[in-house]
Amino acid sequence: MLPKKWHLPVLLILGTFQSSACGSTPNFIIMLMDDMGWGDLGVFGEPSKETPNLDNMAAEGMLLTDFYSANPLCSPSRAALLTGRLPIRNGFYTTNAHARNGYTPQEIVGGIADEEILFPELLQKAGYRNKIIGKWHLGHRPQFHPLKHGFDEWFGAPNCHFGPYDNKQRPNIPVYNGMDMVGRYYEDFQIHRETGESNLTQIFTQQAVDFIERQAQSQKPFFLYWAIDATHGPVYASKPFLGTSRRGLYGDAVKELDSAVGQILDALKTHKVDDNTLVVFSSDNGGAMVSKDKGGSNGPFLCGKQTTFEGGMREPTIAWWPKHIKPRQVSYQLGSLMDMFPTLLSLADITLPRDRAIDGIDLSDTLLNGKNIDRPIFYYRGNEMMAVRLGMYKAHYWTWTNGLQELRQGIDFCRGENVINVTTHDQRNHTSQPLLFHVGRDLGERYPISPDSIEYHSAMKKISKVVRDHKTNLTPGQPQLNWCDTGVMNWKPIGCEKLGRCLPAPSSNPYKCVWMH
Amino acid sequence: MLPKKWHLPVLLILGTFQSSACGSTPNFIIMLMDDMGWGDLGVFGEPSKETPNLDNMAAEGMLLTDFYSANPLCSPSRAALLTGRLPIRNGFYTTNAHARNGYTPQEIVGGIADEEILFPELLQKAGYRNKIIGKWHLGHRPQFHPLKHGFDEWFGAPNCHFGPYDNKQRPNIPVYNGMDMVGRYYEDFQIHRETGESNLTQIFTQQAVDFIERQAQSQKPFFLYWAIDATHGPVYASKPFLGTSRRGLYGDAVKELDSAVGQILDALKTHKVDDNTLVVFSSDNGGAMVSKDKGGSNGPFLCGKQTTFEGGMREPTIAWWPKHIKPRQVSYQLGSLMDMFPTLLSLADITLPRDRAIDGIDLSDTLLNGKNIDRPIFYYRGNEMMAVRLGMYKAHYWTWTNGLQELRQGIDFCRGENVINVTTHDQRNHTSQPLLFHVGRDLGERYPISPDSIEYHSAMKKISKVVRDHKTNLTPGQPQLNWCDTGVMNWKPIGCEKLGRCLPAPSSNPYKCVWMH
Repeated sequence: MLPKKWHLPVLLILGTFQSSACGSTPNFIIMLMDDMGWGDLGVFGEPSKETPNLDNMAAEGMLLTDFYSANPLCSPSRAALLTGRLPIRNGFYTTNAHARNGYTPQEIVGGIADEEILFPELLQKAGYRNKIIGKWHLGHRPQFHPLKHGFDEWFGAPNCHFGPYDNKQRPNIPVYNGMDMVGRYYEDFQIHRETGESNLTQIFTQQAVDFIERQAQSQKPFFLYWAIDATHGPVYASKPFLGTSRRGLYGDAVKELDSAVGQILDALKTHKVDDNTLVVFSSDNGGAMVSKDKGGSNGPFLCGKQTTFEGGMREPTIAWWPKHIKPRQVSYQLGSLMDMFPTLLSLADITLPRDRAIDGIDLSDTLLNGKNIDRPIFYYRGNEMMAVRLGMYKAHYWTWTNGLQELRQGIDFCRGENVINVTTHDQRNHTSQPLLFHVGRDLGERYPISPDSIEYHSAMKKISKVVRDHKTNLTPGQPQLNWCDTGVMNWKPIGCEKLGRCLPAPSSNPYKCVWMH
Repeated sequence: MLPKKWHLPVLLILGTFQSSACGSTPNFIIMLMDDMGWGDLGVFGEPSKETPNLDNMAAEGMLLTDFYSANPLCSPSRAALLTGRLPIRNGFYTTNAHARNGYTPQEIVGGIADEEILFPELLQKAGYRNKIIGKWHLGHRPQFHPLKHGFDEWFGAPNCHFGPYDNKQRPNIPVYNGMDMVGRYYEDFQIHRETGESNLTQIFTQQAVDFIERQAQSQKPFFLYWAIDATHGPVYASKPFLGTSRRGLYGDAVKELDSAVGQILDALKTHKVDDNTLVVFSSDNGGAMVSKDKGGSNGPFLCGKQTTFEGGMREPTIAWWPKHIKPRQVSYQLGSLMDMFPTLLSLADITLPRDRAIDGIDLSDTLLNGKNIDRPIFYYRGNEMMAVRLGMYKAHYWTWTNGLQELRQGIDFCRGENVINVTTHDQRNHTSQPLLFHVGRDLGERYPISPDSIEYHSAMKKISKVVRDHKTNLTPGQPQLNWCDTGVMNWKPIGCEKLGRCLPAPSSNPYKCVWMH
């Protein structure tokens, strides 16, 4: 809900009410990066300081230093963002094995359940026009299509842009425009695997700018979910950016994204909807350390993507809303991508569903008035609550990076880091005496607080209660990431007939997905 | 040398020439922090963003992202700053063992040699009044006193503020005002070992503000060397700052230093010498990982103090000079604290000594015009060149963190970090095939570039030439850190007689100092 004090003065002083086609109902843009690390922006300490537009966005708005994804992996993180619920509730997890990260490769049978309410559905009912640009990742089968889950428009793909594939053993990933596929990666939408050249970010940016222009001219408020994947392997950038970064190809991609963010904010200004549009920039999970020197930076934090250490789930987050969010603010609010659900609905004056647990909290008072709200952050991996943060303390109930067998194959989610009893290569159970860290004075989770100390007992007393309450009230959802089937891959995406691009599909052969980590 | 274009316009437009007592000869302030890490300032990515004054100083001036100390340890780093020469040349190293960090504990016999020229000596001859506030660390015996090496005033101590000692086996460290001691740490200048409370930063700040006021009223230009040690263990802060940081006591100390920087810059403005004063903020070496969660943060960089990895020698550096250094600049210039020597002399229009090698380079064109100058950075540990950086490439010729024996005792300069073949616990010789890293795309020195690659050969070709030239032209100085003697400790500092505070000294008993790492 917009605090009253902002309403009239702002509109009167600035006289934007008349010129804004969207009126006083705020528009929303969520810019969700892919595998971008906390340390990848200049304002978050990346030494090359190559993100002037994002740094400026932060200077004009609020920097959220302690903001988390709900999961250290893409699909569950994104499902949690849109449902406001932990993956353990919304079904984006697996019970095939303990504490495993699952996601939605194109063999996955599951996806977002119809029973789940995505906040765009509620916005849509309230008159919003919603567009997703980029990666969906909540299931690729027809019933999971974003236009069936609250979006009016889509330009992008249901899965990661891995490939190229041969289309016989494995189809290339389709790109959709609206209900129908319009081509496939590596066929119609190129990503050069050697040079990393691709004009996808240009396309995704133009899509955003066009949508903003259209909406500004219409009478409808909008929600734009800009889920761009240039920083996910295989990393890509368009020709004007290739070779321009001090950080190699990954940096080229970041520079292009930064430029794109500048273009999108400019479009809001040009069409005079900037004062009426809340823009939140963040990332789905931490930088991928498995990508070696071709991935992102998690700054001073431990490990990366796939792990429940800070590097895996702490996200570079900025909130921007001229005349509503005061400039040059830094908020220590413990935030979560799941908070977008109640926050956006609150700002749009839409009642929350009451028939289900929502894990996100309404951050509108944080954004608009700088308030700090006490709340825990839960760090899940698959079906296990691995850790909890409360205030400055983080308690690990379970630790795991990746198994020794994978390590021997060169897979390392904590490359170069080795904190004894913390970055464990076995699943280690600390529930009888959780490992406790003070994440303010120990950014890298290197120095466990002694269980004999007063500090430990005092912090754990509070944390234990929070965990007890959480577990008591937790009803896990039906797991969506247990079953795989080569028959469900993107052989015949919706619209393939019109294009004559359907592929022969093997017969259905369901099997339990194997999640190694 | 001040570029001509700045001279007249600035003075005409602002009319500060008349009001500035110091005229057009620039004043200099070097603010040298102690054991502060690259990642300790908000502007360098510290998540708690508790350094508004320093962040603002950077916004008003130039942020130097790739700036280094000449050594990963205090005394050699400071000797190099003031002489413009590598410790291997100015004598601040040891030959007692290979590649050992030596410094100046109070048992040390050596110190800064009379033959060494410190840039304050040359400024002094040109009419500057020079003051050092804080830690000297270039030898504590009478002949090494800063007032005998180019300074006119001193308030501070010759050694680290370790203690308290018993004054029988070991005297407490004296604090000097000018030529004479005025007391001792833990006796006259308190540092509470349990709470960390001390008002030393307040005293050091007041000393700076008073000096600036006095100099602004005089006709003389000044050089202030503000060498403050609140962030060196035992870390301290004054009562108003204790318990205020999200980072614990270390953060309290940083917050107080940040506030002090604000006061000093304000004093320059109040006395209208801001446009005529170049202020450089940096640190003597990286954050001390041996201090565990009571030390600084080296951001995304590997290891810390005592090591030649980036965390040991890359320093949080800001240059500020209103109307001369343009605001909001970021410079990638490979810089060194040793550059202060030729840069300050150049800006003061003083000719460099020609009878010796100077390792620093004149950065005035970088500061004033944003120029980038190609140059290598050499990373020394004692008598060994461990690594070299040229452009974005860093080659390790030797690697070492600390020995296994120390590791077993809990000493770890790379706590929580373990890069195979890189963070070695033995002194490992890679000279036949140096380990090469790209420090732009691999901030943490985790991914050695394959020696089979074109990239490796191309980079190493250039680096090898630089190393060859460097070694050919290198004449090591007389090592000053070989001999220790309990007889030379601070028993009878100059001025102790006047205070009646001389202590009985044991007889001289010289021995070779033991440097473990």
